[in-house]
Amino acid sequence: MKNHYDNAEFFEAYQEMPRSKYGLEAAGEWPELVKLLPDFKGNRVLDLGCGYGWHCQYAAEHGADYVLGIDGSQKMLVQAKAVNQSPKIEYRLLGIEKIGTINDLFDTVISSLALHYVADFEAVIHNVKHLLKPGGHFIFSVEHPIFTAQGQQEWCYDENGNILHWPVDSYYEEGYRDAQFLGQQIGKYHKTLTTYLNSLLTNGFKLVAIVEPAPSAQMIAENQEMSHELRRPMMLLIKAQRE
Amino acid sequence: MKNHYDNAEFFEAYQEMPRSKYGLEAAGEWPELVKLLPDFKGNRVLDLGCGYGWHCQYAAEHGADYVLGIDGSQKMLVQAKAVNQSPKIEYRLLGIEKIGTINDLFDTVISSLALHYVADFEAVIHNVKHLLKPGGHFIFSVEHPIFTAQGQQEWCYDENGNILHWPVDSYYEEGYRDAQFLGQQIGKYHKTLTTYLNSLLTNGFKLVAIVEPAPSAQMIAENQEMSHELRRPMMLLIKAQRE
Repeated sequence: MKNHYDNAEFFEAYQEMPRSKYGLEAAGEWPELVKLLPDFKGNRVLDLGCGYGWHCQYAAEHGADYVLGIDGSQKMLVQAKAVNQSPKIEYRLLGIEKIGTINDLFDTVISSLALHYVADFEAVIHNVKHLLKPGGHFIFSVEHPIFTAQGQQEWCYDENGNILHWPVDSYYEEGYRDAQFLGQQIGKYHKTLTTYLNSLLTNGFKLVAIVEPAPSAQMIAENQEMSHELRRPMMLLIKAQRE
Repeated sequence: MKNHYDNAEFFEAYQEMPRSKYGLEAAGEWPELVKLLPDFKGNRVLDLGCGYGWHCQYAAEHGADYVLGIDGSQKMLVQAKAVNQSPKIEYRLLGIEKIGTINDLFDTVISSLALHYVADFEAVIHNVKHLLKPGGHFIFSVEHPIFTAQGQQEWCYDENGNILHWPVDSYYEEGYRDAQFLGQQIGKYHKTLTTYLNSLLTNGFKLVAIVEPAPSAQMIAENQEMSHELRRPMMLLIKAQRE
């Protein structure tokens, strides 16, 4: 199956996103995510769905000895090697579904907004458990189950184009959704909160933090549109520790 | 402030709910909640917002030595003493906000669908921590943040009266909501998921289980209306352990 990030039109739109152009500081959730990251000093780090490699670079610059960034998109990795190159970082073309083939051990596994593209979350956890040293951390962000449930990923509007509310539907029907993202139909996989959290708890992980990041007052002052982000949770950040 | 369960009209409607008339087996979430309960043998148990005392009775019948059921509604406690009397159970008129005045230690603290009536969840956790022995469990159900966020607690319908979706709004605005419940305006307090879970994690609790109960196939077969309960999460069950 072709990775949708290798679709030329989609990739072009993705390139124009602030987070693609300007990196971590331009990602709304970064101020909350960074608080969950460990001291990378001497760490071996694995990044699932590394994209442009911003998080790999951050780990490398904050003391990691070795960072392996994997991604299923060739285009992403070309970009990563161009903008976030480091002798400490290795980029590898590999889908998240295939991480069971990695024969290595890591102190920290991270993943930014990639796991909602993966159908089987339990399989991911099972693999991450084997890739992590005991006591190691798994820190990831995903689109919030409330954001992925209904599928269209669009607000409800009144006849004048004002936002009414965010629609939730089909919450317990986990699986494929044909979502709208950057003007393209992009397949995502909805999972319930129970699946994200309880799968970790029942597979040898301890939950360390759960955060639903909201835009800061400053972000809203700079862009009034961001105030709508106070109306529904869009992302979920989870920090878990292998026991 | 008068407890709304002491409002005669509301209480009459509450009395007619299946869970009021028939107890735990008539509560949709019970099959999931019961899985989270510990072995009560020899336990001292505290029930926050005990209502009719069904959960107190369950603990007493499953080996608890002593159960303290507290509730802010006099009418509830009259009913509890009538239908769930036991030499092992003590019922006490006390709002959940006042549990700091209880001078005792418990093995288990439970609470069923009561904490969304309390404004300050951190204060509850702080008190529960002091009331629980180390290693003791805190198990509770609340209305799901997705259920409480917008406030009206009503589906969106099309012009023919068909359910379209569940509306979410004002998610990050925690606090008072004038919700509709049993034909009355009932004040509830919306909290985010982050507040429920992270407050536990940052106050000396370990998360053991997080469950969003869905109706079983049997429940849907018996009552087709229940199929809508697959469209949005209504309740959140949490099991935490004092470290």
